[in-house]
Amino acid sequence: MARNDERRSALADAGIRVLAEEGARGLTHRAVDSAAGTPRGTASNYFPTRDDLISALVDRIGERLTPHPEAVSSRSARLPDRKLFADYLRDVVRRLSADPHVSLALFELRLEAARRPAVAEALGAWRQRAFQDDVAFNEGSGLPGGQTEIALFHYAIDGLMLDKLTAPIDTGLSIDAAIDEFVDRLIR
Amino acid sequence: MARNDERRSALADAGIRVLAEEGARGLTHRAVDSAAGTPRGTASNYFPTRDDLISALVDRIGERLTPHPEAVSSRSARLPDRKLFADYLRDVVRRLSADPHVSLALFELRLEAARRPAVAEALGAWRQRAFQDDVAFNEGSGLPGGQTEIALFHYAIDGLMLDKLTAPIDTGLSIDAAIDEFVDRLIR
Repeated sequence: MARNDERRSALADAGIRVLAEEGARGLTHRAVDSAAGTPRGTASNYFPTRDDLISALVDRIGERLTPHPEAVSSRSARLPDRKLFADYLRDVVRRLSADPHVSLALFELRLEAARRPAVAEALGAWRQRAFQDDVAFNEGSGLPGGQTEIALFHYAIDGLMLDKLTAPIDTGLSIDAAIDEFVDRLIR
Repeated sequence: MARNDERRSALADAGIRVLAEEGARGLTHRAVDSAAGTPRGTASNYFPTRDDLISALVDRIGERLTPHPEAVSSRSARLPDRKLFADYLRDVVRRLSADPHVSLALFELRLEAARRPAVAEALGAWRQRAFQDDVAFNEGSGLPGGQTEIALFHYAIDGLMLDKLTAPIDTGLSIDAAIDEFVDRLIR
């Protein structure tokens, strides 16, 4: 990776930490420099406006949530049944849980999107693409669940993660049990 | 309502607006006074600490989300089937959608709960009670769906509302269609 790209990613990672720890309103160029340990002005050099910064964060969140190619290829030989689909879902939830800063930053950006059209645009485009990729992945690999089911899972997993990463209530369901119940019921 | 209670509610409503419009980090006594149009120092008189203020907001959010007693009693004569359950869910979603400030403020508080244990405690206790009330309501009125189903609906509706109130993606499902699909599949 070129040195500039490394610096760019490090700054974006610092921005993700700031979002998760301070909330969207704490996200300033100065806070990013301070979290990244870079001289003041560095974040502004890479991302001149706040919208540029937010775009870069959305891209970086996408990178950090992308599954390892091996994780996908190791499963591609399996029968595309609901059990395999549940395993993929568990992978998603594992990635989101293992990297709570990324998930929390993403929730912060979604609330910021309700206030700022530029954020809504950047984030909306990325989420729309992710949704369509998920639908195409299921179709392409013969997994159960079409557009409607993928939509229901998007809503359900968002709500589950929001609960588990903030102040979880005791519903009697662990994360894994909740995923199993959702797969069992949403996929027919 | 006593004059003090009115002022208290008006300040809490202003706090809800501040949360929704500025995010959790914008929530200060001064911002509440400014949004409420009260002299500086008023919010601090009513809610000396930020935790007192947040507690008051949680209570007020609960009040604003409580269904009108007539809405409940007008339905209590109906057969407690999945159709009635779907109607209650639609009521919840209608209340959340009609009052987006309340829903957004609640999401802000949930993210704040990930950062501050005092918020986690106040909000967690309230949400846990609401969850148990929902389970008890279904049981008491013979509606379909026990603790597991209510848990799944809590997650699903949270994710659905977060999507619809921020930067919604096009999944091909309207809010009503999503509710119907969830009821159809989650209740057996």
